[in-house]
Amino acid sequence: METLKIIKVGGNIIDDEAALEKFLSQFSTVKGHKLLVHGGGKLASKMAKSMDVPVNMVDGRRVTDAETLDIITMVYAGKINKSIVAKLQANNCNAIGFSGADGNTIVSVKRPVKKVDYGFVGDVKKVNTKVISILLENNVTPVFCAITHDKNGQLLNTNADTIASELAVGLSKFYKVELYYCFEKNGVLMSVDDDDSIIEHMDYGTYETLKHNGVFHDGMLPKLANCYHAIENGVSRVFIGNSTVMINKNQKFTTLFL
Amino acid sequence: METLKIIKVGGNIIDDEAALEKFLSQFSTVKGHKLLVHGGGKLASKMAKSMDVPVNMVDGRRVTDAETLDIITMVYAGKINKSIVAKLQANNCNAIGFSGADGNTIVSVKRPVKKVDYGFVGDVKKVNTKVISILLENNVTPVFCAITHDKNGQLLNTNADTIASELAVGLSKFYKVELYYCFEKNGVLMSVDDDDSIIEHMDYGTYETLKHNGVFHDGMLPKLANCYHAIENGVSRVFIGNSTVMINKNQKFTTLFL
Repeated sequence: METLKIIKVGGNIIDDEAALEKFLSQFSTVKGHKLLVHGGGKLASKMAKSMDVPVNMVDGRRVTDAETLDIITMVYAGKINKSIVAKLQANNCNAIGFSGADGNTIVSVKRPVKKVDYGFVGDVKKVNTKVISILLENNVTPVFCAITHDKNGQLLNTNADTIASELAVGLSKFYKVELYYCFEKNGVLMSVDDDDSIIEHMDYGTYETLKHNGVFHDGMLPKLANCYHAIENGVSRVFIGNSTVMINKNQKFTTLFL
Repeated sequence: METLKIIKVGGNIIDDEAALEKFLSQFSTVKGHKLLVHGGGKLASKMAKSMDVPVNMVDGRRVTDAETLDIITMVYAGKINKSIVAKLQANNCNAIGFSGADGNTIVSVKRPVKKVDYGFVGDVKKVNTKVISILLENNVTPVFCAITHDKNGQLLNTNADTIASELAVGLSKFYKVELYYCFEKNGVLMSVDDDDSIIEHMDYGTYETLKHNGVFHDGMLPKLANCYHAIENGVSRVFIGNSTVMINKNQKFTTLFL
C-alpha cells in the first residue's frame, strides 16, 4: 500500500497569517499522497459579533443555530478554505477544497439533544472515499474544512479533529495512513506546565495508565480519543506536535501506536 | 464525443429559495455529464451592508476591494456553493463545489486599471480541464461559483457568465458541449417589453444585424458576447431562457449557433 499523510492544523495556525503561510509552504513540500484538514480559528466568532449573532459555547463546543451555521459555512468553507487552496496553488500544490457534502465524502447525523442542544452539529456516520482516492491518484490534494452534511440537504458543523480521524480510518483501507495533529505545543506533555516534558512514544497501555492517573487535561482528552479511534481502526501511526517539527522530523514530538 | 451540458443559473434563482429548490431538483434529473455554474444574487450586498462595507457598482459590475472580496468569497464559495452542493446530494446528484482555485481550474489576471479600478476582479486567462474531466468521467457533477485565482495566491471576483463560457470552450475539446444560460426571461426578446417576442433561432448573421439595429439592451449584450465567444470556439449550441423550459424543452427559448 502507498502511504497517505493526513495533516490536521488548528486555529492557532489559521489565525496567524505568517504562521499559515509558512505552514502551507512546508506542507506543499511534503512528498507523496497528502490531505489537509483545517479548523476554523477565531474568525467565525469575530464575524458573528460584527453581525450581532450571539456566540454560545458549551464545554468548548460551539452551539450552532441556523445563523451560526451560515456564518461557519461562510468562514470555514468560503474564506478560510479558498484562501488555503489559492495559497497552495501558488506553491504548486494542486489542492481542491472540500466540505463533507462535496463528493458526498462525509455523512453525519445531527447530534441528538441530551443535556445540551448543540443545534446543527454533526457526528460522523460514514466516510465515502471514492472521490478522494480518485483525486489522490491524480496528484490532487484534498483540503477539508470542518463542515459535513446529512445527505438530506442539511449542512452540519463537525469537529475538525474528528473529521481528520474519520477520514484516516476510511482511507486506511486503501493507504498506509499516517495522521498528524499539529497544534500549539510540541507534543503530548507529561506535565502541562513543562513544555519540554514531551511524551515521545505512547502505546495504548501507557495511554490508559496516564489517562487513569489524570495526566491529560481539557482539549487533550478528546484529541487522544480521536487518535486511538484511528489507531484501533487501521491507521498505522498518529503524531501530535508542532507542524514544522513534524514535517522536518528534527525535534521531539509525540508518536502514538497500539 | 460525449455530450456535456453546462448550465448557468443567475441571481434570480439563487435569491428565491423555492425556485432554487425546484431548479436543483430538475437539474438532478438531467441525464449524462453535466456541470453547474451559479451567480451570486443579492446576499453579498446584504452581508456587506450588515458589516458596514460600502457596496460600489460601476456599470452593473461590483468594484471589489479586499473587504468585499472576503465577503464575496464567504457568500459565493461558502454559503451559496455549499448549500447547492448539499441540496444536490439530497437529490442523489453527486456534486462537488469549485472555485477556479480548486484544482487550478480557472486562472485569471487581475483586470488592469483603465477608467475604473475594479479592484480584485479577474479576467479569465486559462482553463485547466483535467480535474473536471476526471470527475465527470466518474459521474461527479462540478458546481462552480464565480471566483477564480491568479495562481499567485490571490482570489479574484469573476463574472459567472464568463466562467460558464470559458469552461464551455475549454471542455469543448473533449465533449460536445451544450451551454445553457438560465435567466428571468424565456429567451432573447425582439422587443424588451414583450415577453412573448422570443427569438427562437439566432445565427451569427442575425445576431450581428440585430445588434447593429440596437435590439439588445443592458445585460443582454455582454451575455450574447459570451455566447458567441463560446460558439466561435468549439461549443456546439448555446441556449438562453427559463431553466424549467430549457430542461423540459416544452416551450419556446432561444437557440444560438454559428
